[in-house]
Amino acid sequence: MEKFEITILGCGSATPSPKHYTSSQVVDIRGKLFMVDCGEGTQIQLRRSRVAFARINHIFISHLHGDHCFGLLGMISSFGLLGRTAPLYIHAPAELEPMLQQEMDFYCRDLEFQVEFQGFDPALSAQIYQDRSLTVTTIPLKHRVPCAGFLFRENPTADHLDRAAADFYGVPQWDYARIKEGGDFITAQGEVIPHDRLTTPAGPVRSYAYCCDTAYNPKMVPIIKGADLIYHDCTYAACDADRAKKHFHSTATDAARTALDAGAARLMLGHFSARYPDETILLDEACQIFSNTLLAKENLTVSI
Amino acid sequence: MEKFEITILGCGSATPSPKHYTSSQVVDIRGKLFMVDCGEGTQIQLRRSRVAFARINHIFISHLHGDHCFGLLGMISSFGLLGRTAPLYIHAPAELEPMLQQEMDFYCRDLEFQVEFQGFDPALSAQIYQDRSLTVTTIPLKHRVPCAGFLFRENPTADHLDRAAADFYGVPQWDYARIKEGGDFITAQGEVIPHDRLTTPAGPVRSYAYCCDTAYNPKMVPIIKGADLIYHDCTYAACDADRAKKHFHSTATDAARTALDAGAARLMLGHFSARYPDETILLDEACQIFSNTLLAKENLTVSI
Repeated sequence: MEKFEITILGCGSATPSPKHYTSSQVVDIRGKLFMVDCGEGTQIQLRRSRVAFARINHIFISHLHGDHCFGLLGMISSFGLLGRTAPLYIHAPAELEPMLQQEMDFYCRDLEFQVEFQGFDPALSAQIYQDRSLTVTTIPLKHRVPCAGFLFRENPTADHLDRAAADFYGVPQWDYARIKEGGDFITAQGEVIPHDRLTTPAGPVRSYAYCCDTAYNPKMVPIIKGADLIYHDCTYAACDADRAKKHFHSTATDAARTALDAGAARLMLGHFSARYPDETILLDEACQIFSNTLLAKENLTVSI
Repeated sequence: MEKFEITILGCGSATPSPKHYTSSQVVDIRGKLFMVDCGEGTQIQLRRSRVAFARINHIFISHLHGDHCFGLLGMISSFGLLGRTAPLYIHAPAELEPMLQQEMDFYCRDLEFQVEFQGFDPALSAQIYQDRSLTVTTIPLKHRVPCAGFLFRENPTADHLDRAAADFYGVPQWDYARIKEGGDFITAQGEVIPHDRLTTPAGPVRSYAYCCDTAYNPKMVPIIKGADLIYHDCTYAACDADRAKKHFHSTATDAARTALDAGAARLMLGHFSARYPDETILLDEACQIFSNTLLAKENLTVSI
């Protein structure tokens, strides 16, 4: 199966703790690297990971709180110092652009690469990136400021041609593409050979949903339905539900209910408050509702 | 002796390395904490150190390269989240103020403490801070952009009164202060008791010079003369002197010559390029010229 991996660079919440960096992760889909959020210290964590710095071409920013974007300027600046020439695409809430542009004008003159800003509206679910193999869609979240999650979803691929069957029925080569896309074949004798007899099914379409920062938000369930992995805000335990509500964050219970409602295969908890010396309390709480749950941690890589 | 300590939070150069954070350190003088430079990740390092986050009231920024100031916004933001109310003083090249103000307006609304910006001109040597026990003076350095070092110098204190001698000669209590400051005493019989017989000398005036980033710069020697400790740019080894010259940084030899010329007691090398897997090469090079040299490293605390 083609690579679809998530590497956690930071999974702590707002202020730094001795244990966690602030939010950032890298999604590696078939060797293409996508960074999601970029808190302070992201480039330091990146240097310590096995992720290839220079191969990151797209950075997605969920919202404009410092723990999700204060590392961006340092990343851009270091890319410059390291001699980058490839364009870097920043996908972020549109209001970031003028601020970032001023900061770059001030601190990062003479960059030898283009920083292409692609703003989006976090209040809408929209497709904001597409290539041959992948689509990225925003997920409106419920936070103190406009905030979006991101759904990384493989594009459906055509079925695989069964070469032996195709040869047996005399399918000409120029007709392969049509049959892989779903077509039947009609032989010279007029016999209809159904698509299913000529092909094996394509692999399942995999998807990863990054949902951070958010209060419990059932509205996003239809968007992330059937995700192979959900990374969900889990700032608090249920005993601190009042705080979660006040700060528009989630408890482990909220995260687990969302994963259950979405019919997800797996749930990764993250964005931990520093108040829990042992995060097993969060894991145990979630597992009571949704058993296939794991805790994020720095430098953890999860394959889908 | 009163506390005068330097704690290194980061001593790497421009781009992050797996080994070093970018520039930041904390000077603790009699329990007052002064931060010098604030590269990305400073607050993370601070959390891991024994330095009390909330007791930092002054931050000095040497110049406006990202590896010396990209951590400032995160510090200010976290101070806000942690409920700080005491004013925070930022001493930095004057051109930083409008940029920082815009960033704070964008990212740090609702701060419950004042950020007091005190701009200086890095091209001049001027006293930019003074309290009862300490003076901070800028040191013009030689870098690609305007850049200042900082001399932290204790104020001279009065001599200590020898209570036994004072009682013996009948010095009245109201006259103590004048005598400690250097006065003689005249007894009722008209006998002059010289200052020296009534007092013991004050401790020596200690000083610390932070000189980073800079090319070899003999002009600063008169300012840092007799420093107890110099922290000096040591980005390169002598074998890379061409690079040092090109980037306006120093070699270990440059740092050692400066310490020697200044008659310093000790030299600490820092701002290391990531190109030296073993920095002993830098230490050995400096020690040939100035033997009382040490290498900076993260979380090292040096007492003066």
